[in-house]
Amino acid sequence: MQGELPDFSDIEAAAARLKGEAVETPLLESAGLNALTGARVLVKAECLQRTGSFKFRGAWNLISQLEGAGGVVAYSSGNHAQGVAAAARLKGLPAIIVMPADTPNIKQQNTRALGAEIVHYDRATQSREEIAAAIARDKGWVIVPPYEHAHIIAGQGTAGLEMARQAEARGVHLDAVVVNTSGGGLTAGIALALQALSPATLLYSAEPEGFDDYRRSLESGERQTNASTAGSICDALLSPTPGEMTFAINQPRLAGGLVANEAQVGQAMRAAFQHLKIVAEPGGAVALAAVLSGAIETSGRNIGVVVSGGNVDADLFCRLIK
Amino acid sequence: MQGELPDFSDIEAAAARLKGEAVETPLLESAGLNALTGARVLVKAECLQRTGSFKFRGAWNLISQLEGAGGVVAYSSGNHAQGVAAAARLKGLPAIIVMPADTPNIKQQNTRALGAEIVHYDRATQSREEIAAAIARDKGWVIVPPYEHAHIIAGQGTAGLEMARQAEARGVHLDAVVVNTSGGGLTAGIALALQALSPATLLYSAEPEGFDDYRRSLESGERQTNASTAGSICDALLSPTPGEMTFAINQPRLAGGLVANEAQVGQAMRAAFQHLKIVAEPGGAVALAAVLSGAIETSGRNIGVVVSGGNVDADLFCRLIK
Repeated sequence: MQGELPDFSDIEAAAARLKGEAVETPLLESAGLNALTGARVLVKAECLQRTGSFKFRGAWNLISQLEGAGGVVAYSSGNHAQGVAAAARLKGLPAIIVMPADTPNIKQQNTRALGAEIVHYDRATQSREEIAAAIARDKGWVIVPPYEHAHIIAGQGTAGLEMARQAEARGVHLDAVVVNTSGGGLTAGIALALQALSPATLLYSAEPEGFDDYRRSLESGERQTNASTAGSICDALLSPTPGEMTFAINQPRLAGGLVANEAQVGQAMRAAFQHLKIVAEPGGAVALAAVLSGAIETSGRNIGVVVSGGNVDADLFCRLIK
Repeated sequence: MQGELPDFSDIEAAAARLKGEAVETPLLESAGLNALTGARVLVKAECLQRTGSFKFRGAWNLISQLEGAGGVVAYSSGNHAQGVAAAARLKGLPAIIVMPADTPNIKQQNTRALGAEIVHYDRATQSREEIAAAIARDKGWVIVPPYEHAHIIAGQGTAGLEMARQAEARGVHLDAVVVNTSGGGLTAGIALALQALSPATLLYSAEPEGFDDYRRSLESGERQTNASTAGSICDALLSPTPGEMTFAINQPRLAGGLVANEAQVGQAMRAAFQHLKIVAEPGGAVALAAVLSGAIETSGRNIGVVVSGGNVDADLFCRLIK
């Protein structure tokens, strides 16, 4: 946990830093998804963000503010890695990413292509935090955490700021927003943005079945831990427990936690392919899966959904959408 | 051929009509595509447009201006069908679409889901124009042609207007733009937009191998015809010959015509999947295929590419990207 909890003014400041560097991703709608749900479904397509996920937002918001750093270190299942690598290159800093050995090839390739060095670890037996801390200590570099940092949360929150303003420009009041949740940084940023811009909107986390630590934490009021840290197709959503900062922000602001199973995730990826023409990775499609499978009431409502990433190997993608 | 040739003011008027109804599609860029080409490749992702292709732009520009019509009739290999169906529903008019019997299922399903009625014809032996004309005559409805109409061309031109302004906002001068070309309406609209907003930009058509009537017409100065009207995976790009209006606009404004084969199209679809996270249909990926295969000089240049549609069945998509 680093720094004070961010507030909405930090998100506005982050938006100014991201302007011209991040994509203002479109809020997509299709007659097909609306017909399937009886709702207006507005999809914030963060898979179209620079590096293929929302993670560039937080990484650039933090890294662009560094003064005098020699380099950056991050640990990541992949999407944060690419976000940090791209942001570091843009800032002119070297980057080392500590990455699970079982990370999908496309995320490893793309991270290296962005100029970062990769150090592998075993997700089941080693601590990524300790490995990253040792590297940072040895080199005197700065760690860019995946979610427990005010600048990271504020950066991710720019997705929520855009979403609220894009919906408003279309004359749509969002009754609910559903966000894929792992450590909770994106969800926390969006929670702060919606509180300021659309306070009546109900916000829900969405997680893969078996990795629903956030849902259980929200229900119990205490941070819960997943039984496993591997074994889901949703490789982007396997953080073991809610962040301390993110939970402090999310707990009083979320309406609840939703869950989708792997079959529902595959159906959502197919729906995104067919109706929106976007590539959603499994962990990027959980919120859409929850909405399409009826986890919340949709009929007659306006539902915002974040598709948070699209970094998926072609083989897995095709197996899941067919 | 209907009406006078459009000019840039018609495109600006079309943009005003489309505001709030069409998606301002993002101009996407990726480190991966830039590395592959040595260029900055800026992709106008029209697959993210309402109905999954640029065709909604022209259809809405025409149909929104109709007064007192009882309904609309169109002939289309699929993308124009969906654009017309969505625009007609938005205007509150019934629509009949004359469609080849071998149209991909996804385009037929999506057209019916938008409330239109489909009448099939045999691409090899029947005239879609005659069938549509007979229906329009019997019912007293209005034909919405796929490209030979000033309102259609002006509507498609809004994609070029957005592209030029999005590039300018990013401080990028487009050295070249490459557009998938069939009848030539999108290309003509973009030609008019670039002439007004970015006159030094070189504009190229792109067609599938064996269906390069536009390239041969530009070279000879006379409208040429393809030997075949079927037999390509690029089902959206099989118009037999350049439109009379579109050729009048394009001939003096285009720098040349490019061609890509089916293997190159598959590689481009895979690149769009991997690097941009968008779904490109085969006919939507020809311009990107031409750029990635070196049909024009790319090194050190800023190249705009239109990915014009994403309506492709999952089976074909997965066969081509693997």
